[in-house]
Amino acid sequence: MSPEEILKAVRDGQLTVEAAAEALRRGRFADLGHSRVDLDRARRKGTSEVVFGEGKTAEQVASIARTLLDHQQNVLVTRLSREKAEPLLQAFPHSEYHELSRIFMIRPYPLEAVESRIAVACAGTSDFPVAEEARLTAEFFGNSVDTLYDAGVAGLHRLMADLDVLLEAKVVIVVAGMEGALPSVVGGLVQAPVIAVPTSVGYGASFGGVAALLGMLNSCASGVSVVNIDNGFGAGYLANTINRL
Amino acid sequence: MSPEEILKAVRDGQLTVEAAAEALRRGRFADLGHSRVDLDRARRKGTSEVVFGEGKTAEQVASIARTLLDHQQNVLVTRLSREKAEPLLQAFPHSEYHELSRIFMIRPYPLEAVESRIAVACAGTSDFPVAEEARLTAEFFGNSVDTLYDAGVAGLHRLMADLDVLLEAKVVIVVAGMEGALPSVVGGLVQAPVIAVPTSVGYGASFGGVAALLGMLNSCASGVSVVNIDNGFGAGYLANTINRL
Amino acid sequence: MSPEEILKAVRDGQLTVEAAAEALRRGRFADLGHSRVDLDRARRKGTSEVVFGEGKTAEQVASIARTLLDHQQNVLVTRLSREKAEPLLQAFPHSEYHELSRIFMIRPYPLEAVESRIAVACAGTSDFPVAEEARLTAEFFGNSVDTLYDAGVAGLHRLMADLDVLLEAKVVIVVAGMEGALPSVVGGLVQAPVIAVPTSVGYGASFGGVAALLGMLNSCASGVSVVNIDNGFGAGYLANTINRL
Amino acid sequence: MSPEEILKAVRDGQLTVEAAAEALRRGRFADLGHSRVDLDRARRKGTSEVVFGEGKTAEQVASIARTLLDHQQNVLVTRLSREKAEPLLQAFPHSEYHELSRIFMIRPYPLEAVESRIAVACAGTSDFPVAEEARLTAEFFGNSVDTLYDAGVAGLHRLMADLDVLLEAKVVIVVAGMEGALPSVVGGLVQAPVIAVPTSVGYGASFGGVAALLGMLNSCASGVSVVNIDNGFGAGYLANTINRL
Amino acid sequence: MSPEEILKAVRDGQLTVEAAAEALRRGRFADLGHSRVDLDRARRKGTSEVVFGEGKTAEQVASIARTLLDHQQNVLVTRLSREKAEPLLQAFPHSEYHELSRIFMIRPYPLEAVESRIAVACAGTSDFPVAEEARLTAEFFGNSVDTLYDAGVAGLHRLMADLDVLLEAKVVIVVAGMEGALPSVVGGLVQAPVIAVPTSVGYGASFGGVAALLGMLNSCASGVSVVNIDNGFGAGYLANTINRL
Amino acid sequence: MSPEEILKAVRDGQLTVEAAAEALRRGRFADLGHSRVDLDRARRKGTSEVVFGEGKTAEQVASIARTLLDHQQNVLVTRLSREKAEPLLQAFPHSEYHELSRIFMIRPYPLEAVESRIAVACAGTSDFPVAEEARLTAEFFGNSVDTLYDAGVAGLHRLMADLDVLLEAKVVIVVAGMEGALPSVVGGLVQAPVIAVPTSVGYGASFGGVAALLGMLNSCASGVSVVNIDNGFGAGYLANTINRL
Amino acid sequence: MSPEEILKAVRDGQLTVEAAAEALRRGRFADLGHSRVDLDRARRKGTSEVVFGEGKTAEQVASIARTLLDHQQNVLVTRLSREKAEPLLQAFPHSEYHELSRIFMIRPYPLEAVESRIAVACAGTSDFPVAEEARLTAEFFGNSVDTLYDAGVAGLHRLMADLDVLLEAKVVIVVAGMEGALPSVVGGLVQAPVIAVPTSVGYGASFGGVAALLGMLNSCASGVSVVNIDNGFGAGYLANTINRL
Amino acid sequence: MSPEEILKAVRDGQLTVEAAAEALRRGRFADLGHSRVDLDRARRKGTSEVVFGEGKTAEQVASIARTLLDHQQNVLVTRLSREKAEPLLQAFPHSEYHELSRIFMIRPYPLEAVESRIAVACAGTSDFPVAEEARLTAEFFGNSVDTLYDAGVAGLHRLMADLDVLLEAKVVIVVAGMEGALPSVVGGLVQAPVIAVPTSVGYGASFGGVAALLGMLNSCASGVSVVNIDNGFGAGYLANTINRL
Repeated sequence: MSPEEILKAVRDGQLTVEAAAEALRRGRFADLGHSRVDLDRARRKGTSEVVFGEGKTAEQVASIARTLLDHQQNVLVTRLSREKAEPLLQAFPHSEYHELSRIFMIRPYPLEAVESRIAVACAGTSDFPVAEEARLTAEFFGNSVDTLYDAGVAGLHRLMADLDVLLEAKVVIVVAGMEGALPSVVGGLVQAPVIAVPTSVGYGASFGGVAALLGMLNSCASGVSVVNIDNGFGAGYLANTINRL
Repeated sequence: MSPEEILKAVRDGQLTVEAAAEALRRGRFADLGHSRVDLDRARRKGTSEVVFGEGKTAEQVASIARTLLDHQQNVLVTRLSREKAEPLLQAFPHSEYHELSRIFMIRPYPLEAVESRIAVACAGTSDFPVAEEARLTAEFFGNSVDTLYDAGVAGLHRLMADLDVLLEAKVVIVVAGMEGALPSVVGGLVQAPVIAVPTSVGYGASFGGVAALLGMLNSCASGVSVVNIDNGFGAGYLANTINRL
Repeated sequence: MSPEEILKAVRDGQLTVEAAAEALRRGRFADLGHSRVDLDRARRKGTSEVVFGEGKTAEQVASIARTLLDHQQNVLVTRLSREKAEPLLQAFPHSEYHELSRIFMIRPYPLEAVESRIAVACAGTSDFPVAEEARLTAEFFGNSVDTLYDAGVAGLHRLMADLDVLLEAKVVIVVAGMEGALPSVVGGLVQAPVIAVPTSVGYGASFGGVAALLGMLNSCASGVSVVNIDNGFGAGYLANTINRL
Repeated sequence: MSPEEILKAVRDGQLTVEAAAEALRRGRFADLGHSRVDLDRARRKGTSEVVFGEGKTAEQVASIARTLLDHQQNVLVTRLSREKAEPLLQAFPHSEYHELSRIFMIRPYPLEAVESRIAVACAGTSDFPVAEEARLTAEFFGNSVDTLYDAGVAGLHRLMADLDVLLEAKVVIVVAGMEGALPSVVGGLVQAPVIAVPTSVGYGASFGGVAALLGMLNSCASGVSVVNIDNGFGAGYLANTINRL
Repeated sequence: MSPEEILKAVRDGQLTVEAAAEALRRGRFADLGHSRVDLDRARRKGTSEVVFGEGKTAEQVASIARTLLDHQQNVLVTRLSREKAEPLLQAFPHSEYHELSRIFMIRPYPLEAVESRIAVACAGTSDFPVAEEARLTAEFFGNSVDTLYDAGVAGLHRLMADLDVLLEAKVVIVVAGMEGALPSVVGGLVQAPVIAVPTSVGYGASFGGVAALLGMLNSCASGVSVVNIDNGFGAGYLANTINRL
Repeated sequence: MSPEEILKAVRDGQLTVEAAAEALRRGRFADLGHSRVDLDRARRKGTSEVVFGEGKTAEQVASIARTLLDHQQNVLVTRLSREKAEPLLQAFPHSEYHELSRIFMIRPYPLEAVESRIAVACAGTSDFPVAEEARLTAEFFGNSVDTLYDAGVAGLHRLMADLDVLLEAKVVIVVAGMEGALPSVVGGLVQAPVIAVPTSVGYGASFGGVAALLGMLNSCASGVSVVNIDNGFGAGYLANTINRL
Repeated sequence: MSPEEILKAVRDGQLTVEAAAEALRRGRFADLGHSRVDLDRARRKGTSEVVFGEGKTAEQVASIARTLLDHQQNVLVTRLSREKAEPLLQAFPHSEYHELSRIFMIRPYPLEAVESRIAVACAGTSDFPVAEEARLTAEFFGNSVDTLYDAGVAGLHRLMADLDVLLEAKVVIVVAGMEGALPSVVGGLVQAPVIAVPTSVGYGASFGGVAALLGMLNSCASGVSVVNIDNGFGAGYLANTINRL
Repeated sequence: MSPEEILKAVRDGQLTVEAAAEALRRGRFADLGHSRVDLDRARRKGTSEVVFGEGKTAEQVASIARTLLDHQQNVLVTRLSREKAEPLLQAFPHSEYHELSRIFMIRPYPLEAVESRIAVACAGTSDFPVAEEARLTAEFFGNSVDTLYDAGVAGLHRLMADLDVLLEAKVVIVVAGMEGALPSVVGGLVQAPVIAVPTSVGYGASFGGVAALLGMLNSCASGVSVVNIDNGFGAGYLANTINRL
C-alpha cells in the first residue's frame, strides 16, 4: 500500500492507527535473515534489485533469486564466480552465465524493448570483459546495443572508420584502461552523453585503474561522466536509464 | 565545408586536389595564436565551446569571447576571478558575472528552450557555489532548473519533504561534500539518471573532496555517475545533454 | 505533529488525506532558502542543530542563529573566522567567541547538567586549539570537563602524575598530532571509552594529520575510536552523548 | 601488590628497598618468551587481554590461552584461520570457533550480564562477517545484541521498518563497505553513540575499504566515531565498554 | 590509399563521392571482431603494431600474429605468460620465447640494421628481467645493444669501470628499482639521452616501484626522461626511435 | 687536467704523487661556499650547468652567474621569481627575463645552431607557461622550435590541421594538463620521439598534475617518455640532446 | 628524588606512604598550565627538553624558556618564525636567532665538548636551511661540525673532491631534496652511520619531499637511516647522541 | 691497488699510463655476468657485501656466495625463500638458514667481537620475524644482542619491568607494526640512539606498514631514526655500525 492508500484506509476505518503507523514505517521487502530483498525497487527505480554476487554464498544468491522470481522480477547477478554459478545454473532452468564478465541471469518475464540504441566502445582487447558486462547489463533491461571494440587512441583511424556507430546512439559507453584517453576523444566528437568506465587493465603506475579513472574525471571534453573502476554493470544500468528517457 | 562538400567540389572541378587535401585536414577553428577557438564544436556537440577561465589572461578571454560572438555563438566562461571579470563586464555590454560561482556569460543569441526540467540538490549550505555553477550552466543552455538546497542525510526529512522536485525532473544533479552520501540516497529514490558532484567542502580526511568523490564512485545505488570534484559546470553541461534527448 | 498524531487526526476527520500525506512527508524544519534548519533534531538527537561556520556568510549564520533562538534552541557555531564572528558578537547580546578554537555560542536556554565528568588530554601545547574545541563543545551541552594538557609520550611521567584525572572520567578525549601515540597509551591504562582526535600538528610526513589519524585507527589498545582530523567538535559532541548515558 | 601495598611493606620492614624497587618496576605479566601476557589488564581495563591471532603460530596461541585460563580469565582470539583453529578446538574442550568471522573463544568463567542492549546494523549481505565479529565480541563480554542486516541506503525503507531496534539500543554499531553512507544516516536518526565500522567490501575505487573509512570520518552526522577497516572486534569491544557505563 | 590518392581518384572520376568519403573515414586495419589490428602503423610509426599479451587469450594472440605475418610484418608480443606462449611456439615455426622477460617474437622479415649502439644498464641483479625486456625489444627492431648489469650506486666503481659502454652509446637505458638513483648518476656523466625505467624491485616503502619512479621523475640530472614502472618494452622501443634518428 | 693528463705529468715527474692524488679526487668546480659550480659539466654533458632559481637568494644566483660567465659559459636560470630577477636584470647588461615562464638568461657566447627542428605542442591555453619554458630552453641551447598551441583532444581537427609541424620535427614535446591525453594521440601519429610534459593545470582530481602524469606514464602509444610535472625545462633540455644526435 | 631515594626515605621513616606514592607517580616537571616542561629529561636523555616553536605563542615560548633557564638548562627552540623571535631576542639578553633555519637559542650554561666530529653534506644550495638546522642543533649540544654543501649526484666529482670530510667524521648527516639519491651514494662510500634527511625542495612529483623520503627509505646502501622531511633538528640531535657514544 | 699505490707504480715506471688509467677506473669487483660482486666493500664499509636474495635464482646466489668465500668474506643472504635455501644448505657445508626471518649465512671467517651490547625490542609477538632478522644480522657481524619481545604500549608495565635491557645497550632497535608507537615511548626513556623498524603487521588502514612508518617518522621523541618497512636487516646492520664506534 502506498502512503495515500494507507491514509485512506485509516480515514475509512479499515485500518487502526497502530497498524497504519507500522505499515507506513515498513516498506515492501522480504527479510531472508541474511538479506532484505527490496521488492519495492521496481516501483521506485523502474528495475528490480540487482544482486552483487561477491561476498555472498551460492545459497544466499539462490534464495534471493527465488524471492525475486516469486515476485515476478527477473534476476541479474553481477561478479559471480564460475564456482558459485554452477549450482545456480543447475538449480534455475532458464538461467545463463557469462564467465568472462561474471554475469548470471534468469529472465522469464518479458521486458518492454526500447527503440533507440546504446553504443559500447572499448580501447583495447583487454578491456573486453568490462565492456561485455556493460553490454549484457543493458541488454538484460531490454536495450539494443552496438559495439566498437579495440579502438584506442594510438590508432585513431580505427575509431573514425566506424564513428557512425557512436553518432547514431542515444547514449555512449566508453571503456578504457591504461591512460583512459578514449572517452575524451569520443566526448569531443559525439553529442550523446558519454559514460566513461575506467578498467584495471595496465600495470605499474596504472595503479589498478586509478590512472584511467583520474584521466576520465579530468576529461577536457564535455558531456562525460564516470563510474567506478571496472564497473561495467553501473554503466550499462545508467545507459538503460538514459536510453529510456 | 563538410568532407562531402569538399569531395563534391573536387569532383566538379571547383577545387584542386591540393586545396582539398588542405581543407580536409584543417577543420573549422580560429587561430588566435594563444588559442585555437573551436568554431566547429556547435555542429558536433550542439553547443559552442565553453572557456575555462583559469590560467588565461583577461585579454585572452576577451579575444576568445569576441571570436565566438563574431560567429554567432553565446559565451560561457567558467572559473573566472572577479579581478579578471571586471574589465570584461566593462567591455561586453550585456554580459553578467556570478561571483560566488565564478561564472561569466554573454548571451545575445536565443536558445531553444527545453520543456522537461532539471533538478539540482545539494547537501549543505557550503556546497552552494558548486550547485549554483551547475544551475547557471544548465540555464545558459536553455534549461529550466529546480533547486533543493541543504538537504543532507543528517536530517533526511528535509529531503523527503520536497522529494517531488526530484521525482519530477528528467535528470537530477546532486552536489555534496564531506562523506558525499546524498547521491546514494537520492539514487535509491528516483528513476532519473543522477549526476553526482563531489565538492571540496570539509576538512581533515576529506582531502579536498576525495572522500566525497570516492563515496560517489562507490555508490551502492544504481543510475549514478560522477564528475570531477567541484565540477558544477560539467554536471550542468551533461544535464543539458541528457535533458535534450 | 508526529506520524501517530497525524494518523489520529485523519481518523478523527480533522485532517484530509492530502494534508496528512503532505504533513507526513514534510518534517519539522525552517526553509531559509540557503539553508533548511533542522528544528526536529533536538527531538531526535537530544541536541539542537550545530552550525558549521566554514563556507557560510555572516548573514547566513545570523539568520540560522535567529531561527534556532526563535525555537528555544541554543546556538553553537564551529569553525567561524574572527572576521565573521565580529558582526555576530555585535548582533547577539549574550554571545561569546573563542578565537583560538573558532567557536561561537549563544546560550540563553538552560541545560540539564550531568554529574559524571569528561576528561580531555592532549599531547602537546600545539594541540591546544583542538583540545579546547572539544572542551568548549562538551561544556556547551552541559558537561563538566577536566583537562590534562601537554602530556605526550616523550615524557610519560607527565601523564602518569595526573592519571587520576583520566581514571575518574566517564569518557576520555585524547588529542594528539605528530605520531598520535597518546590514545594508545591512555587506552592501555583506562577503562572508560577513549575518543581519539588526530590533529594536523606536525610537518613533513605528518601529511596534515594523516600520520596521527592512521596511528589512532591502528591503535593496539582496545576501547579507542577515532574522529576526523582536527575534529574537536565531533569528539566533544560524542563525549556528551556517552556522558549522558 | 599495588604500589601502595609495596610501600607499606617497605615501611613495615617486610620488604627491602631493592626488592621493592624491582616490584615497583615489574607489573603483573607472564613472560612466555615469545609473548608477555598482560595479566594485569583485567584490573586496569575490566576485561582480560584479547589475542590477535594473525602472525602467531597455533602453539603460541595455545600457550597464551592456557596462561589466561590458569589465571581465571576467559579467552578470545581474533583473526584466527581455520587451519590454526582446528588443533585448538581439539586441545581446549569447551572452545568454539566461528569460521566466517575467524573468532575463537573459550569461556569457562561467568560474566556479569548487562541489561541494556547493543544493536549491530550492516549495509549489505557482504558485510556480514565483520558485523558478526562485532556481535560475537560484544556477546563474549556479556552483552545482549540485536541485529539489523542488509539495510543499505539504496533502499532506506528496509532500515526505517526496523528503526526501533536502533532507537532502543544504548549503543549502535553500523558496519558498511562501498561508500559507507549508512552510519551518517543512522547518526542522523538515533541519540545513542554510533560506532562506525568500514569494511573492505567493494572494488575499484573502494581501495580496500578506504572509501568507506573516509566517508565515515567525514560524516555530517554527529555522535559518530570510527574504528579501523574490518575491525568488528574493536567495535564490539568499545560497545561493551560504553554499554557497561 | 592515402587521402591524396583518394582525392585524385575522385577528380579522375574513378571513385564516387560516397565511396571516397567512406575510404577517407576508414584507415587501414583488419577487424578481427575482438581486435582491430592497425596495419597502417608501420607507415605512420616506422614499426608494426606490437601486441600487449596480458588479458588476451592465446587464440586472440595467434590470430593477431597471423594477420600481421600475412601483411609482411614481424610480430612482437610482450607480457605473455609461459602458459599462453607454449601453443604459440608450436603454431609458429620460427618463433622464440624469453620466459624471464615474457617476450614472444616471430621475425621472418629482415630489418635494416642501425650502426649506432644502444646501452642498457641496470642497478641490481633483480632488475634483470626488465633490462632484458628492453634489450630484446631494441634488438627486435634491428639495434645492437651493449649491457652493463648490477652497477648500482652502493658501489659506484662497478659503474665507473665500464663507463665507456655508456659514453659510446647513442642512447642509454637505465633500469633500477628501490630508490632508483642510478639514472641520476648516469645522467650526470653522459651526454646521450637517458631513458629511465623504474622497476618494482624492492619491498615496504618501495610501493611496487613508486619510490623508484618518483626518484627518476625528480632527477637532478638533465637529459633524463621516464617510462612506466617495469616498462622495459617502452624503453627499448623509444631507444630504437632515437637510435634511428 | 683529465686523468690521463695527470698520469702523464706524474710519469714525467711534473707532479708529485700527493698532488696527483688530490687532482684526481678533485674535479673542476668553483666552490662559492653556498654552491659548488660544476665547471666540468660542459665537457661531460655538452652544456653548461643550469641554475635552479627556487630556494636561492638573488645574491647567490648572481655570484653563480658571474662564475659561469667568467668561464665562458652562458647562463640559464629557471624558476626565478620576478622579485629576484629584477636586481639581476640590472646587474647583467645583456640579460633577459620571461616572467610567465620564470626563465632568466644571459647569452654572450655563441652556440652552434642545429638544422633539424623541435616541435612543441600544448593541449590548452593554460599550459602556455610550461610550453614556453620548454621552447625557451631549447632555443637557449641553439635549436629552432615550432609551436602548435591549444590543440587538445576535445577538438582533434585543431591538431590535424597542422600535423605537418609535428611530422617534420626531429623530436616533439607535448605539454598537457587535465587528463594528459594529447601525448598518446600525438604518439600514435608521429615517428619522432615524444617527450610528454604533464602540467598542474586542472582542479579537483587532477591533484596538481598527477592525473596528467599518470595518463602519460600509461600511454598506449609507443615512443613516449615523461618528465616531471611542469618541467618544461627538462623537456627542452632533453629535446636539445636528441636534436643534436 | 629517584625511586630508590624515595624508598629509602620511606624505610627511614622520613616520608609517609601517601607522600611517597604521590612522589613515585609524579616525576619532575613544571606545570605552566599550557605546558608541562619536562625537567627530568636531562637526566634521562642527557639533554634538556627542546621546544617546538610552531603553534606556540611567543609568551608561551618565553615562559618555557624561563623555566628551563631557572633549572640550569640551555634553551633550544626550533621552527620559530621571525615574528615570534623578535620579542624573545629582546627579552633574553644572550639569545641568538638564525632566520633561515628558524632556530632560536640561549646558552648560558657550558657544555662538555666532544672531540670526534660530525659531517653535514647537502645535495643542493636550496637544501641549505635544513642542513643548517642540523648543523646548529649539533653545535648547540657541543659538537664540532664540518660541512660539504651543494654536492649532488649530477656532478659527483664535487663530492669526491672533499670525501675526506665525510670519511673522517664519526657520523654523517646527508640532506637532499628532489630524488634524494645522495645518501645512497655516500652510504656506499663511508663506514660511519649515515643519517638521511629528505627535504621538501623540488616541485611536481616531489610531493613536498615524499620522493626524497621514499628514495632514502629504499636506499640500496647499508648503514643509512632516515628522519622526517625537513627535520634537520632530528638529524642534528641524533648525530649528537651517536657522536657522544 | 689503492689510487696512491697506482700512482706510485706509475712514478716508478712499473705501470704504463694506460694500464694505470684503466686500474683507476676499475675498482675491485668480480664480474659474474649477472652480478658484479663488490669485493672492495669490506675495505670501504668494514663489512663484506650482503646479498639481497629476492629476485635472484639459487644458482646466482650460489655463485655470488662462492665468490665471496673465495675472497675470505663471510656470506649473509637476506629474504631467501626456503625453496631456494635448500639447495644452498646442501651445497655449503657450514651454512645455516633461519626460515622465519628468511636469513641464510655461511661464516667460516672469524669476526672481531664487540663488547658493548645491542638491544632489540618489539611491540607484539607478530613482529617476531622482523625483530629476529635484526638480531641475526647484528650477531652475524659479531655483536651481542639482548631482546625484549611483546612489550607494546597497550601494557606499558611489560616494557618498564625490563627497561634495564634497553638502558644498558649502546644502541636500541625497536620493531613495531600497527600504530608503531613503541619507538616514541622508548625514545623518551633511553639515551642511546633508537633505530625504529616499522613492520607490515596490521590490517585495514595500516596499509602494509605505512601507518607504523609514518608514526615513527613523526615521533615526538628525539634520537629516533627510521629504516624501511620490515627492514630488520637494515636496522641490524646500522646497529653494528654504531655499536662499533
